[in-house]
Order: sequence, then C-alpha cells, then structure tokens
Amino acid sequence: MEENEQLNEAKELLDSHLNETIDKELSPADLAQHLKTLKKHDEELFGEYLEKLDPEILGDVAIEMPDHMLKDVIEQIPSDKIIEAIEELESDDAAELLEYIEEIDEQKAKELFDGLDKDDQEEILRIRSYDEGEAGAFMQTELFSAHIDEQLKTAVERLRREKEEGKLENVSQLFITDKKGVLLHAVPLEDLILFDFNQTLKEIISKSEEDKYKPNVAVDNEPIETVVETVENYDMNSIAVVDSKGYLLGRITTDDIHDFIKESATEQIYNLAGVDDEAEEEDTSLVKATRARAVWLLINLFTALISSSIIGLFDETIASYVALAVLMPIVASMGGNTGTQALTVTVRRLTLGEIEFKNAANALKREVGIALINGLTFAFLMGVIASLWFNRPMLGVVIGASMLINLFFAGFFGTLIPLTLKKFDIDPAVGSAVLLTTVTDTVGFFSFLGLAKWILL
Amino acid sequence: MEENEQLNEAKELLDSHLNETIDKELSPADLAQHLKTLKKHDEELFGEYLEKLDPEILGDVAIEMPDHMLKDVIEQIPSDKIIEAIEELESDDAAELLEYIEEIDEQKAKELFDGLDKDDQEEILRIRSYDEGEAGAFMQTELFSAHIDEQLKTAVERLRREKEEGKLENVSQLFITDKKGVLLHAVPLEDLILFDFNQTLKEIISKSEEDKYKPNVAVDNEPIETVVETVENYDMNSIAVVDSKGYLLGRITTDDIHDFIKESATEQIYNLAGVDDEAEEEDTSLVKATRARAVWLLINLFTALISSSIIGLFDETIASYVALAVLMPIVASMGGNTGTQALTVTVRRLTLGEIEFKNAANALKREVGIALINGLTFAFLMGVIASLWFNRPMLGVVIGASMLINLFFAGFFGTLIPLTLKKFDIDPAVGSAVLLTTVTDTVGFFSFLGLAKWILL
Repeated sequence: MEENEQLNEAKELLDSHLNETIDKELSPADLAQHLKTLKKHDEELFGEYLEKLDPEILGDVAIEMPDHMLKDVIEQIPSDKIIEAIEELESDDAAELLEYIEEIDEQKAKELFDGLDKDDQEEILRIRSYDEGEAGAFMQTELFSAHIDEQLKTAVERLRREKEEGKLENVSQLFITDKKGVLLHAVPLEDLILFDFNQTLKEIISKSEEDKYKPNVAVDNEPIETVVETVENYDMNSIAVVDSKGYLLGRITTDDIHDFIKESATEQIYNLAGVDDEAEEEDTSLVKATRARAVWLLINLFTALISSSIIGLFDETIASYVALAVLMPIVASMGGNTGTQALTVTVRRLTLGEIEFKNAANALKREVGIALINGLTFAFLMGVIASLWFNRPMLGVVIGASMLINLFFAGFFGTLIPLTLKKFDIDPAVGSAVLLTTVTDTVGFFSFLGLAKWILL
Repeated sequence: MEENEQLNEAKELLDSHLNETIDKELSPADLAQHLKTLKKHDEELFGEYLEKLDPEILGDVAIEMPDHMLKDVIEQIPSDKIIEAIEELESDDAAELLEYIEEIDEQKAKELFDGLDKDDQEEILRIRSYDEGEAGAFMQTELFSAHIDEQLKTAVERLRREKEEGKLENVSQLFITDKKGVLLHAVPLEDLILFDFNQTLKEIISKSEEDKYKPNVAVDNEPIETVVETVENYDMNSIAVVDSKGYLLGRITTDDIHDFIKESATEQIYNLAGVDDEAEEEDTSLVKATRARAVWLLINLFTALISSSIIGLFDETIASYVALAVLMPIVASMGGNTGTQALTVTVRRLTLGEIEFKNAANALKREVGIALINGLTFAFLMGVIASLWFNRPMLGVVIGASMLINLFFAGFFGTLIPLTLKKFDIDPAVGSAVLLTTVTDTVGFFSFLGLAKWILL
C-alpha cells in the first residue's frame, strides 16, 4: 500500500470513530494501530487526534500503545483527563496502565495515582501487592455480587445501576457471599435469568440441586497457571478470586486468561531461542534488544570455546587425516538436532502438564528410545556415506559409532536438562538449549576424534 | 508417590464421583486422568469403572482420552451407550469425538454415526464440511437465539426448556434473527436480565442506543486466526458464526478459542525444533514419533553434508594449519545462534500480527542492525581470543572478519526466510530452522576457510 493511502485510511477510520458514523465499532487495539500510522506520517495530526479521544476509551487505547506513544499521551494530555481515563478502566487494567506509565515517568505516575479516588487507589494497591505470577495480580475487583439474604431483584437493580454508571462490564456470574463477604455460591447469568426475581438468593439456592452452584475459585496467591487449568477444565468465562479464608476479592475474566496463554507461549518460544521476551516488545530500542541478545551469544561463545578446545586436543590426529575435520561438524549437528527435538518436546509437555515428576522416568525412557533408534539409523547411513566418500571403511565405523554415542547423549540430556531445571523451579526453557549444545558438541567432537585416533591411526 | 498410592487415590476419587459424595465436581480431564492411572495398574478394574460412567459425562471424558483408552471405550461399551453419550455432547465436541473414533475404527464410527438422530447427523456433517482452519470447523450449532418479534419471556422460557433438556449450556448471549434466520443483534445476558420480559425483542432493541447490539461475527469460512483476533480485541465470551449471507449458523465459545491458542503455540514451538506436533501426542507410538522426527534429521543430514563439502574444498588449507579446524565450529555456531534469534522473533511477530508485509522492510532492517552490532562485538572479542590462543594476530583478523560476515547473513536470512515462507502461504515455522543453519554453516565455513587460505597461507 502507498504510504499516503495508509495515512488516509487511518485518518478516515479515526474520523468515523470520533463522529460515530462508523458501521462497526473500532476496538481499542484498532484505534491504537491507526494512531500509530498517523504518528508515523504526521506527528502533528497524531497529536490532534490523540486529544480528541474520549476519556471513556482513552485508557483502553493507551494500554494497547507502544511506549513511545504512551509517552506522548502523558506529555500531551492534561493529567485531569488521564486520571478520568484511568478511573474509567477496570481495576486490573488501571493497575497495568499505571505500571506502564511508571516505567516511563515515575513522577507522573505518582501524580496520576494521587489524583485518583481513594477507592480506586486502594484497589490498585491491592492488585499491585501481588507477585507477577500470582492469581491476585490478574484479578479485577469489579464484580457482580450479592448477599445471600438479598432478593434477586435487588441484586439485578444494582447490576443495572453499576452498568449504567460504567462501573461494571463483562459480567457472567453472580457471586453470592455471606454477611462477612465469604464466597458461598457462584450462579451463571444463564441460570439467574430463569429464577423468580422476587425470591431471596437463599430461597433460590435451597431449591437448586445440592452443590450446583458451588464455586470453582482461585486463591489470591496461587500461581496463575493452575487458575488457567481450572478455567480450561471447567470451560469457565470468569473465576472468583478469594483469599485463604474464602473472602471474595475479585474475579479473573477470560480476556486476561487469553493474554496470559499467549504471552507465556511467546516467552517460551523466545527463551528456547535465547531471546529475552521483555527486550523484544514492538518498540524496544535497538540497543536494548541487541544487548539482551548479546548476553546469550556471549554464553554461547563461551561454550563453543569449550567444545573447540576438545578439538584442540586432537590437532595432530586431524593434521594427519583431514577428512576428520570435514566430517566432524556432521556428528555435532545431528546430535544438536536430535537433542533439540527431545528438549523442545520435554519443555512443552512440562508446560502442558503432560509430564510430571512421577512419570519423568517414562518420558526419559521414551526420548532415549527415540534417540537410540534414530541413532542406529543415521549411524548406519552416515557410516556408509563416509566409507564411500573417503573410500575408507573404518572411517565409516568411526563416524557411525560416534553418531550413535552422540545421539544417545542428545536424547538423554535433551530430556534430563529441562526436567532438572524444572525440579529446581527454574524455567526449563531458559538456557537449556545452550547447555544442551555444549553437551552434544563436546560429546560429538570427543567421541568422533577420540575413536578416530584410537581406531584409524 | 508409591504406585499403590496412586492407584488408590484414583480409585477413591472415581468412587466419590460415581457416588456423588465428592465435594468438588471432577472435570472430564480429571476423570480421564484417573481412569488412565487405573488402566496402568489394573486393566480389569479400569474396565469396571469405565462401564460405570454415565452417558452424560462419558462423551466429555472420552474426548480427553488418549487413543489407546478411547479404543477400550469403543470395544467395551455397547454402541447404544456411546451413541447416547455422543448425543449428550455439544455438536462441535460430537464431531470431534467421531473424528477421533474414525481414526481408530472407521467401521465403528460409521455405525455410531448412523445411530444418531437425523438432526445430530446433519449438524455433525455441517461442521465436518469445513476445512481444518475455518471458523465453521470450530463452531457448535447449539445456541440461544430468538426471533425479533418474540417476547423476551418466550425466549427465556425456551432457554429454560433447552437447559433442562441438557441441550444448551455455557450461554452468554442471545442472538436475535429476522424471520429468515439472518442474524440482526447479539445481546449479552448481562443486559438481557435487565429488560422487561413482557416486551418483544423489537421493542427492547428499538429503545436501546443505536448499534449497541450490532454483533461482531465470524463468517463460516474465514480463518480461525482472524476470529481469535476479533474475540480478543472485543473481550468476547462467544461469537456468532454466520454464512456469507448473514444467516446464523452457530457460535464459537472461548473454550475452543483457548484450545486453539494453546495448540497453535505448541505447533509453532515444535515446528521450529523440527518436530511434527501431530506425531507427539501423549500416546503416539514410539515408532511413529521416531519416524516423524527422522524425517527432519534426514533433511538435516543432507544439509550438513552440503556444508561439510564446503570444508572439503579447503582440506589442504586445514592440513597445513590445524588451528582452523579448531576454530571453524565457533564461527558456524555463533552464526546459527544469531540467526535463530532473528528467525524466532520474526516467526513469532508474524503470528502475533506485529509484522505485516507493508512493514517487512523495517523488520529486516532492525534484525540486520541487531546482527551487525553483535557481529562487530563478537568479531572483536573472538579476534582477540584467537590471536592470543594461537599467538597469531592475522588469525584473529580472519576469524573476526568471517564472524562479522556470518552474523550479517544470519540476521538477514533469519528474517528473510520466514518472511518469504509466509509470503507463499507456507507456515514460517516449518523447515525454516534447517534452511537457516544451512546458510549459517555454509557461509561460516566458506568465509572463514576462504579468508584463511587467502590471508594466512
């Protein structure tokens, strides 16, 4: 597409959003995308449109923005309006946006936070008091709840009011608590709509099948991974978050679950490749991304030097028979690939909960089995190729034997490394690939050159 | 845990499920897991419990089973009961389960299909008529819909009936159609519960804000990826599926979206590592998994032979200066790692929609920039190390220069390969790693040995 066309399209869509003439409502992500296009082509025009955004949507759009645009927001939009925008957000999103702003300008974040309602402040502090991976960090405090002695119609009237005031959206359950706020039941709206609105919730529950509305809950400090599992196993649209005593604190909705699943997949893919996911956001500076990747390359250089020094031990062997230098990378490469297959499958199956420590021995047996069968196949194949290529049968025997040895080690360590990391509560995707190639390169070079020295010379 | 303990725990939990004495309902995934433990320790006991499972839950549990257990189901459970279980399932799950059964025993699948109601048969055929990646393949036909002229209370009464009959669950919206079945509006239950049940839907809609209930839809043959994007952008719990003329066909619920996000992440991680995700299911036979992995190892062997033959061109150079054989894998390894970083980031950003073809040039510039800066750093570092190690400064110059060249190519091809594959609609994660290592090995060996021959000898 022509640059101008892109600009015009973005401008048109933003206009239709602002004038409410658009057929299909634009999502915050779309709006952020169009603003980005505007900014790329015409900084001034971008500023104008930014200022025209309603506080009602501004917060949602700001969350979707890369840092450099968020910076424009906090510099160009008056604090009052940003505060209003933050108050429009659900509490988890408000906490998130403030965190982003804090990363850019700590002072400003403090100023905005101080401008918020006392209630909003408390909610945000509560959410931010949890660790990154805890359920509480993903919850929003806005929810539809009622006291067990209330009439259903009173609860529904409250829902109406809170929705009208823009305080509550994306509701899928009514959470019923006792007087003290301990969660007793969770009733999905699809059931609620069928009940007699004049009855109290106690009456409604007592007439239902026992335990029908017993809630699946997330405890605030349990790891988000187990919450995701519960939500998936029971096909839930949202889940209540309670503290260790059962008090209702908030809820986690599926959009947060989606984001989490997607982000953890990205993190895992990146970690396996020696890339730091946090340094690869769309707008991370080149310098920061380069530096983060250099760390892994440095570690790799160090391990490559170790395996090279193995080759150095056999320099005389190589000097007297150069074919060894030609073939040696093949043994290492096949080991690396076999090991990576075992490693990747193990890391992923650990994530998916298919492997646990009680069946770790089975996984290890399986992977070593696969590696050994393929080891035999490729040992034979490569043995024949090497014999014919250099017209020396014993060279075939040497490379075959070392291939088999290396592929065995590859399967074994490809499985053992992530299992061990996981056992010590270290992310099995981080660093495991580098460790593994160190093993497969070292074993590959050593077994091949060692056998050659012993058998051939 | 002791083997016996595992067995007893599984047995206890299954008992409490069957006797309904359990505190928290077990999910189908849990039940399948406990049955698996039983089967592992006591085949006969497993059979007994399998037969005790209610048709109401049997289908859901069967979907979660590995193939070898599903085989037991179709062999041990009478067809009548399996048919009943399939009819209890939502249509998308029924289609899925029949597909699994078909893979095990085509004849049996046909028999079961023939035993289903005509309506169920039609729904399943409709769902199975779509291609694997199309929205229609993910939809279920069970939904809560109403005609625009109906009173809300009539619709709600129908919801009550269909829920009581077990025909409908996980409802989050009412889909409103015209006489012909064209979708007009989608009203979330959290709004529906607030309306006057005696009014017709037409009256309700006409009093609402214009376009408030305009539905975000998925067209039946659009790719599931764009549906996932819509669901995420608008934080939806379910989305209507319509045909090209707007007729309401079904809906896709978040549990299906979850499964899709998770499965595509697994597929991508596996493909990047040269592993076929379909051959790595928990219960795939060792032989099948081994064979699938061997295919990629064979391709890798072939490309490794190509890069080795490059080394063969320089056998005299190596023979006269063995240090080259020692250092040569370092150049290849650093190139491979740098390239993998660029490749992984590009593949993932393509998936996340952060890179499109209109900004591909920017992505390429960025990745080459990162690779070049790191190339300079590591060229210098390795140059110094090699000079000192072998006490020959020009060797440092050679390895530095070839490192820089190889890291440039690594960044360039690491980005270009997935972009090109994607352009031709090939999954950019499949095969790209092998292609890339061919480039980085070949360029690494050729530049290093070539420069050495030219400068050192």
